[in-house]
Amino acid sequence: MRLSQYPLTTLKEVPADAEVISHQLMLRTGMIRRLAAGLYTWLPFGLKTLRKVERIVREEMDRSGALEVVMPTVQPGELWKESGRWSEYGPELLRFKDRHEREFTYGPTHEEVITDIARRELHSYKQLPVNFYQIQLKFRDEIRPRFGVMRAREFIMKDAYSFHISEASLNDGYRTMSEAYVRIFTRLGLKFRAVQADGGSIGGSSSQEFHVLAESGEDAIVFSDADDYAANLEMAVTLPVLAPKGGTTQSLSKVATPNARSIADICTQLSIKPAACIKTLLVDAADGGVIALVVRGDHELNAVKAQKLPGVARPLRMSSPQRIRESLALETGFIGPIGLKIPLYADHAAAHLTDFVCGANEKDAHYIGANWGRDLPEPTSVDMRNVIVGDPSPSGQGTLQIARGIEVGHIFKLGQKYSASLKAVVQDEHSKSATLWMGCYGIGITRVVAAAIEQNHDANGICWPEALAPFTLVLVPLGYQKSAQVRQAAERLYAEFIGMGIDVLLDDRDVRPGVKFADSELLGIPHRIVIGDRGLDVGTLEYRHRRATTSIDLALSEAVAFICDKAQSAKA
Amino acid sequence: MRLSQYPLTTLKEVPADAEVISHQLMLRTGMIRRLAAGLYTWLPFGLKTLRKVERIVREEMDRSGALEVVMPTVQPGELWKESGRWSEYGPELLRFKDRHEREFTYGPTHEEVITDIARRELHSYKQLPVNFYQIQLKFRDEIRPRFGVMRAREFIMKDAYSFHISEASLNDGYRTMSEAYVRIFTRLGLKFRAVQADGGSIGGSSSQEFHVLAESGEDAIVFSDADDYAANLEMAVTLPVLAPKGGTTQSLSKVATPNARSIADICTQLSIKPAACIKTLLVDAADGGVIALVVRGDHELNAVKAQKLPGVARPLRMSSPQRIRESLALETGFIGPIGLKIPLYADHAAAHLTDFVCGANEKDAHYIGANWGRDLPEPTSVDMRNVIVGDPSPSGQGTLQIARGIEVGHIFKLGQKYSASLKAVVQDEHSKSATLWMGCYGIGITRVVAAAIEQNHDANGICWPEALAPFTLVLVPLGYQKSAQVRQAAERLYAEFIGMGIDVLLDDRDVRPGVKFADSELLGIPHRIVIGDRGLDVGTLEYRHRRATTSIDLALSEAVAFICDKAQSAKA
Repeated sequence: MRLSQYPLTTLKEVPADAEVISHQLMLRTGMIRRLAAGLYTWLPFGLKTLRKVERIVREEMDRSGALEVVMPTVQPGELWKESGRWSEYGPELLRFKDRHEREFTYGPTHEEVITDIARRELHSYKQLPVNFYQIQLKFRDEIRPRFGVMRAREFIMKDAYSFHISEASLNDGYRTMSEAYVRIFTRLGLKFRAVQADGGSIGGSSSQEFHVLAESGEDAIVFSDADDYAANLEMAVTLPVLAPKGGTTQSLSKVATPNARSIADICTQLSIKPAACIKTLLVDAADGGVIALVVRGDHELNAVKAQKLPGVARPLRMSSPQRIRESLALETGFIGPIGLKIPLYADHAAAHLTDFVCGANEKDAHYIGANWGRDLPEPTSVDMRNVIVGDPSPSGQGTLQIARGIEVGHIFKLGQKYSASLKAVVQDEHSKSATLWMGCYGIGITRVVAAAIEQNHDANGICWPEALAPFTLVLVPLGYQKSAQVRQAAERLYAEFIGMGIDVLLDDRDVRPGVKFADSELLGIPHRIVIGDRGLDVGTLEYRHRRATTSIDLALSEAVAFICDKAQSAKA
Repeated sequence: MRLSQYPLTTLKEVPADAEVISHQLMLRTGMIRRLAAGLYTWLPFGLKTLRKVERIVREEMDRSGALEVVMPTVQPGELWKESGRWSEYGPELLRFKDRHEREFTYGPTHEEVITDIARRELHSYKQLPVNFYQIQLKFRDEIRPRFGVMRAREFIMKDAYSFHISEASLNDGYRTMSEAYVRIFTRLGLKFRAVQADGGSIGGSSSQEFHVLAESGEDAIVFSDADDYAANLEMAVTLPVLAPKGGTTQSLSKVATPNARSIADICTQLSIKPAACIKTLLVDAADGGVIALVVRGDHELNAVKAQKLPGVARPLRMSSPQRIRESLALETGFIGPIGLKIPLYADHAAAHLTDFVCGANEKDAHYIGANWGRDLPEPTSVDMRNVIVGDPSPSGQGTLQIARGIEVGHIFKLGQKYSASLKAVVQDEHSKSATLWMGCYGIGITRVVAAAIEQNHDANGICWPEALAPFTLVLVPLGYQKSAQVRQAAERLYAEFIGMGIDVLLDDRDVRPGVKFADSELLGIPHRIVIGDRGLDVGTLEYRHRRATTSIDLALSEAVAFICDKAQSAKA
């Protein structure tokens, strides 16, 4: 492409309403433009990158044996009523009626539609396993869309759905997809981690998230520094403490702690560390009562883990002052486990404490020197807190580290959730009717583009991984309009690179060199060749990689081979 | 692809609800499946063809210099209110509200959105001309969707929008698109015609339709048998009759024609031909009165032409019996031009008649021997009927023929309709504010697939043009499961064809040869090679083209070169 013939321009100013760097850079480079809240047009520079993501995803899905289809974006409400999600799904599900007053949705996902296809088309185990995928638009009516295409309302997903005769076959298919995802994100040139995740509202027994690592990521990713254990914060496991308990040296005594309502207050008043206290959280029980959850003062309760504990109401709810009053005859504040007549769980670390500090269940008072087994019963010790950096890895190897990530992929074992509710059955090898087993596998195609920028940028703009760059190479002629020598060299190189299949941008605009350099860095084009009279006089060009800080001289005669070589090795 | 690993099957029965052949064949071959009225899933065989259409369209749009973008499918109602179409557009415009009660539509077209982009991004004539295109989903809430993807509610369009500083530049851009469309439909391997068309409700001064010729086509296409003149029936021009008028031999007389309310009745009663009568049609005038439109008995009024006549109300409405009574003191039936005191237009052919028959404006009576200029004033002679086969071509060359066509493309000069209402202006070379000129250019991508089948099929199934075939070649091994020789030959050929980049299907299913032959014909794969023991024993294979009626022997050693040669020449 010749930049002189491209009508859109880059922006110098950071757009006021763009909070995150990827959104800012996508607007500044003219990759996208906002139409309305959460609705974006992809302009040519953005679309070129988007198509590169799509192509790599498509190639690896095809290679895995999946079959590409395209399902409608508009889905009948009836199907969602069959699965039960018409009422379960929140206002993110855009519901509307057609001219005949029939109910439809602009689908945020396609489990119902593909299961409907499966129950009509699949009749025998001989047709299995099968994996259908599509690269298709979806809509989620976010209450507050933001961060540009990172959390847009209309977006492109690659979603795949596999069908199996047995759980064993589903496990195989799930593994195949996990491997395909590793190939995809590797080929995209992104630093990423596959982490264990909770199934969430979509249901199912097992799931894995793929995160692009970036400091700005919304999610905390936990990983071992010694092996490939990785999980999101919701799922990362804490182990029972193996070290022997400390000695019981103090006796229990009640002390005054006026107005000490936070761990920080108590630590200040008593000159102790948070790790020497416990927090006693009261949550609703499923039977209408209250359950106590005890974690160490420096730890945080993990709601996903806690709501899986026997007896705890789902979703997790902190008990109201009224319920606490009715169940325990206590006021909130200064709550502690001693003397509480309700079920109690202690986190492994809290259960390992000795001589600890806790609320005394009366205003402005705490106990010091409390000990499990002496002052109160030994607790049921469970995993229900967020891990922290330095916790031992549950894999048994190394300690846990935490990084920030942006979720771009997610694979699930759905089991028989949808096939049971939609009655998708086939004949098995014994001619008996068998409910299908199902997996689903998503990649946020539009989101990958933003995540790649969050991971790859500097103060001057985007630093594209080679596989995602809208252009591999930019040619910057200095004095294109004035110097015949420069113009001829630029045109010859431009034609040669096109002939070699290199995605090349020729900046033939009549603007200052500084503007050309700034734009090439903003756009993040990996390779740049500057063509000037001074160099041409001695047969050289100036080459710089986007991530390099200095340029190198390049013989004019070797330029094409040099770049082709770089592009080739980036592909391999 | 190996057919044994493909889970979906073809259907022998013609689906009951599919009226047209393309819909039937797309269901039978498993190209598409219905989700709900007007909503279809594209399964792998269909999607392969759809992607081939997209690729050719994209390549030719890129070659024409157009820039690809992707606009959201969901569009804010505000923009449609600015252009005025929120209220003008009928119930085909799917309107809905988001969770914040803001109005949106699933766009059936994108003039508003692209004009909004243009007014924000284009500031100077130096950025012009520019042509943005997309290949994107659209939604039209048809009252009665039918014919499968031919008239679906959700469908894929290629839509392009060009912006210009002047009408002259728009004319250039329009011509460029017209040429690109000719290349596209030629490369798709379809028999088509570009025809002059009416601008229709989208507005604008000039437009051209591209029709795929097919007997089942809904539209009549008029073309000259001697040059490239072509127009749709609405627009095809009739010329004034150049031949001298016939002589005036009869005197005017009134005859009884009891109950003769149709041309057929009159012709029977008076033993004359329809071409000797006139029909006098009364239509509403724009001023509240009535206007008489006279056409020959064997001709049909063309509503599009008639409503453009000065004084005629738009849209064209036949006058009600009540209005006729009030304006003319006449009852309907037996109306004729003699003595009528209202404005009157006669079609060129009607105006050329002598000694004609017409209604006498009284019950059960007609005049015979009527003559313009003697019995009533010479009429204003205009073009307002549909052409018929044999009419002289308005190009001056040859006579007109009529064919049936399916509209798959449409290009418009929009002029300043949207740029004026949305205030899309730029600075011209004199630094003055200038309203943009605009063109728009559509191709129904999903519709092209159905139209191609309507044009290319026989009793056994689809006969794909090479460029659109989901597979170029099918290998049919006979006894693949039993004969090692057949299996080895089939596998070797399959690998070789894949290596040569041929889109090859290996029918390695354990089914009877008859089933394989029937499926390969149903699927319409252009080239078929049968591999059997008998041939292999003497080093031959059996080759047949989908449109051929007999097979030919092919030396095993020459098979790859033979097919590559065919595929290559089809591409050229």
